Amino acid sequence: MADRNGGTSVLDPQELAKRHPAEVAEILHELPEAEAVELLRELYKVHAAADSLEEMDPDEAAELLEGLPQREATAILSRMEPDDAVDVLEELPRDAVEEILGHLEALDREKAEVLRRLLRYPPDSAGGLMSPEYVALPADITVQEAIERLRRVAEEAETIYYVYVVDEGGRLLGVLSLRDLVFARPDTRIREIMRPEVVSLSPEMPADEVAQAFDKYGYLAFPVVDGEGRLLGIVTMDDILDTVILRDTEDMYKMANVPREERVDTPWPESLRLRLPWLYINLATAFLAASVVGAFEGVIAKISALAIFMPVVAGQGGNAGMQTVTIVTRGIALGEVPPGRGLGILAKEVLLGLLNGLAVGIVVGAVAYAWKHNPYLGLVAFLAMMGNMVIAGLVGASIPLGLRALGLDPALASSVILTTFTDTLGFFLLLGLGYLFRGVL
Amino acid sequence: MADRNGGTSVLDPQELAKRHPAEVAEILHELPEAEAVELLRELYKVHAAADSLEEMDPDEAAELLEGLPQREATAILSRMEPDDAVDVLEELPRDAVEEILGHLEALDREKAEVLRRLLRYPPDSAGGLMSPEYVALPADITVQEAIERLRRVAEEAETIYYVYVVDEGGRLLGVLSLRDLVFARPDTRIREIMRPEVVSLSPEMPADEVAQAFDKYGYLAFPVVDGEGRLLGIVTMDDILDTVILRDTEDMYKMANVPREERVDTPWPESLRLRLPWLYINLATAFLAASVVGAFEGVIAKISALAIFMPVVAGQGGNAGMQTVTIVTRGIALGEVPPGRGLGILAKEVLLGLLNGLAVGIVVGAVAYAWKHNPYLGLVAFLAMMGNMVIAGLVGASIPLGLRALGLDPALASSVILTTFTDTLGFFLLLGLGYLFRGVL
Repeated sequence: MADRNGGTSVLDPQELAKRHPAEVAEILHELPEAEAVELLRELYKVHAAADSLEEMDPDEAAELLEGLPQREATAILSRMEPDDAVDVLEELPRDAVEEILGHLEALDREKAEVLRRLLRYPPDSAGGLMSPEYVALPADITVQEAIERLRRVAEEAETIYYVYVVDEGGRLLGVLSLRDLVFARPDTRIREIMRPEVVSLSPEMPADEVAQAFDKYGYLAFPVVDGEGRLLGIVTMDDILDTVILRDTEDMYKMANVPREERVDTPWPESLRLRLPWLYINLATAFLAASVVGAFEGVIAKISALAIFMPVVAGQGGNAGMQTVTIVTRGIALGEVPPGRGLGILAKEVLLGLLNGLAVGIVVGAVAYAWKHNPYLGLVAFLAMMGNMVIAGLVGASIPLGLRALGLDPALASSVILTTFTDTLGFFLLLGLGYLFRGVL
Repeated sequence: MADRNGGTSVLDPQELAKRHPAEVAEILHELPEAEAVELLRELYKVHAAADSLEEMDPDEAAELLEGLPQREATAILSRMEPDDAVDVLEELPRDAVEEILGHLEALDREKAEVLRRLLRYPPDSAGGLMSPEYVALPADITVQEAIERLRRVAEEAETIYYVYVVDEGGRLLGVLSLRDLVFARPDTRIREIMRPEVVSLSPEMPADEVAQAFDKYGYLAFPVVDGEGRLLGIVTMDDILDTVILRDTEDMYKMANVPREERVDTPWPESLRLRLPWLYINLATAFLAASVVGAFEGVIAKISALAIFMPVVAGQGGNAGMQTVTIVTRGIALGEVPPGRGLGILAKEVLLGLLNGLAVGIVVGAVAYAWKHNPYLGLVAFLAMMGNMVIAGLVGASIPLGLRALGLDPALASSVILTTFTDTLGFFLLLGLGYLFRGVL
């Protein structure tokens, strides 16, 4: 981390260019935006801007680039790794992207085309994550020749630890590790030492499943191939680490109703603007629950003891439901819920709701009875508590499973949807039963 | 995935031994425990047990090993990568570990000592994650000699893509990539081409910070060195992907009050046993909130309208507080909250609570006023709502920051702690204000 008191000497672009780009990225992140843009222009002059931007969050990198003259922004993007450049382009407005690609066409036609091709895939797919800078070799060259070729491309390739063997049509035939090459006899044909069984990904594969493949196999990279088996690019493990961390952040955020763009160091006016809409959504659902209470106002006025059990029934239902939501959502994210197993999970969660509801409901009922010495109050509290736990299990499992079945994100606003049900139906059960038993309470 | 209908032919250990160990691990995971243990014994006979266990969750692998005779379990553990073997040992009861290590001493004394040394570090530290199977070379050999030595150790090493250069005392002098070696002149001394600035980790570094280092630098491996600079082991990126996924699962679970051991496919009797204690803890806190309502029962009996705003004030406070808890907890996990910045975050969240509280409170107050045409009811609802939002910001930020300051996990049961405050204090504000204004409501 830079010593901020060190002044200009620390932020000397010549000095910074010698440091690890990740450290420069951290400094850019810490600086106020105007100063960061200024520093980026200085870094550009010493050819250190592209490397540093690759290490930043794409949305932050995009913000900085927007502060630069188009010509410089284009030049910096053209020097970035294509997969990182595409991530940044995806954060820019559509017309800015077109303008930059237009400029880039004049500067480096091939690069512009590569970026256009990568931009066609959604960012959270194997195609969106892949880099076109892999090493592909024909099958009939020797190990010696392969090492020679590697030497020439080593600078540009994303990784040379895996080398892909392709036919004339660009179709993937096999894979070799650098380790295989180094330890093979120099005059061996690489066809003989390549491994023909390659685990490959389709460009449409969602990022989640890509992460699962890395987690399962522990490989450093996977090839991405199209329907005809042609090699399109590679996804490397370091991209996946970023992807997993971002996915998990977003899942946590979605579950807890937090705006996707916010981070702990977001300035407060921005945080205010981002959070308030979500709070208003929650407010609308809270009024729904309140309207149920309002409908039973007469019962509460007569049997005020019911109000005491409102937070217990609703709170406990919300808590049990969030257990279910969390376990099922995380299971889906980690690929542990194959399609077709949804019904089994739903049944299990409803059963758990019933059994946990019995266990918890007995305590709640006993407390209600002991407190007012009224067995009917105990019965009402018990039934409402147990009922709401069943609802919690049913709704808690249905939200992520249902969202997935609809092709939506399983984590989407799940806590708000859940508590709308557990509050509204919990109050309805408690106060409705109270109304039915009003003669004896 | 195995075709389960294929019967024994699919589970033929000879056939399975040819498949990727991750796929065999998946089959072991799917089978009922007794059958999995049986299959593991068969795999052991064809030397395929250790590789498959390395790919399983350590706690599952430990369960299977407990089903085997001690002799076979020891033999399998001795063939596993030491870092994976240690993860499994950490899941076994202490006396089983001692017995196995005793057996192993007779079988492979050196291996037993390596495992004992690794077991000294907590599992969620760089020392607990590291593998001792790195490649270390003296500085004065040539590139040619280095490649020769690599060839000999390539089979056992965790990775040969990074080669570490050490002095006679085992102190780390520099690092070389296989890429550097392959492309250097064969008679160069490796001292001349090694990179002397190595980012290294201390064995005590928490797993979270290790993950941050991988995320920041994008390296495939980091060396772990002791206080004297001696190389102890390496941590590789594939271990970190597992670590990050597990950390995020546990953080989500802790925030939502979910038992750490549960997964989506945990059998229901086990789920019931695991979840119920957490539900009872939540029940205790719900009764605390209920007791506040109980204390104001007389006010509610007179002014039943207050009961209607109870779920709004409490629910909205809980929702806003979870936004804060989630953002701060995630920020801490990702290393974005350096010590000393806590107060600034606390101040920001309280300010946001006040401003969001104003924005939300005005709506709640207006609804209360419009509904009963009583300005005092509007005022009470407004003040209680705004006050509870400030409490939500204050408590929401204090929980993760405070837990961290106490050396505890920032995510620990945070939703339960939070809603205890937002429910209890929210009801207290609403009903207390209602009591004060009882003459005009």
